[in-house]
Amino acid sequence: MRKGEQTREVIIQRAARLFNEQGYYGASLSDIMRATGLEKGGIYNHFGSKEELALEAFDYAVGLLNQRMRAAILAQPNTYNRLLALIEAFSRTATDPVLPGGCPIMNTIIEADDTQPALKERAHAELDRLFESIRYTLKLGVERGEMRPGINAQKLASLIIASIEGAIMLSRLYRDSSHIDAVVEHLKNHLEQTLRL
Amino acid sequence: MRKGEQTREVIIQRAARLFNEQGYYGASLSDIMRATGLEKGGIYNHFGSKEELALEAFDYAVGLLNQRMRAAILAQPNTYNRLLALIEAFSRTATDPVLPGGCPIMNTIIEADDTQPALKERAHAELDRLFESIRYTLKLGVERGEMRPGINAQKLASLIIASIEGAIMLSRLYRDSSHIDAVVEHLKNHLEQTLRL
Repeated sequence: MRKGEQTREVIIQRAARLFNEQGYYGASLSDIMRATGLEKGGIYNHFGSKEELALEAFDYAVGLLNQRMRAAILAQPNTYNRLLALIEAFSRTATDPVLPGGCPIMNTIIEADDTQPALKERAHAELDRLFESIRYTLKLGVERGEMRPGINAQKLASLIIASIEGAIMLSRLYRDSSHIDAVVEHLKNHLEQTLRL
Repeated sequence: MRKGEQTREVIIQRAARLFNEQGYYGASLSDIMRATGLEKGGIYNHFGSKEELALEAFDYAVGLLNQRMRAAILAQPNTYNRLLALIEAFSRTATDPVLPGGCPIMNTIIEADDTQPALKERAHAELDRLFESIRYTLKLGVERGEMRPGINAQKLASLIIASIEGAIMLSRLYRDSSHIDAVVEHLKNHLEQTLRL
């Protein structure tokens, strides 16, 4: 990797962390300069604007999250265990996030408003993917005969994502893992009762 | 009510709406001036600082939410139906919030950081009250013989608050009530199975 590319990567990684902890408005260019040890020109040498850097930083953050979830899912032989692995990997964000500051998708969605349409759209697309990934696993599970049929995949995806995102917020806020633990335990019991063969 | 008090009330009500929609940083003094039709001096005549106004606006917003929840709960004769009423009144925030912008407690908690310790503390205290209100209803329900004993009140409170707050976010984001509907339906079924006599 050329030195310029290395510098670019370092800026993205440090900015991703700052944005996830402090928000895109909260993390100023001065913060990014301090975190990278670069001057303003050294940063704008690689990115046309703060928005451009924010998009790259978001892709980096969500890439880490997706990588973690994919690795957990692919380690499982059947769809039922894949769904459990997805729930566990996603819920780790409460106590052991891929970047300090919690869930990059939810943080970006909450903060990015109409002044940042590209970033907002990207975060939406990632949340859509998470829904699709759960629906797909449920569909495949029934097709393969690894889960009981008759479940409403869309409703179950809403429950899983809503309760985990809500519990990530509570556990981070109270610095108490009991909230995410309670939700994960509940979801596992619910899947056991409704999906397990 | 004297004219000065009326003006003060109007400022609080309009600021509460702006803060809930745009956040405490996002809603500028100019926005508040525009919404109230007052000059800067006319606002600072009533409040020492934006922080002081933010605290009063938060109390006003959360007062509306608590009023709605209390009215729904008190209309019910027994504790089991009170818990259902609390879930329904709280979840209405997704589609019919007391103020535009969603849940004032969660919005404030997410946004208020270490630069606003008083506001952060107030929002924390309100979330604590919500937890306590659910735990108390469950305790009373068992004592009165209106619910089955043996439930873990703290875990159930975590599940209810996490899943509803998460679903409020999803339904607001997608402008689609199916997420909150799915969570409320699930919680009702869960209570039916675990608490109902």
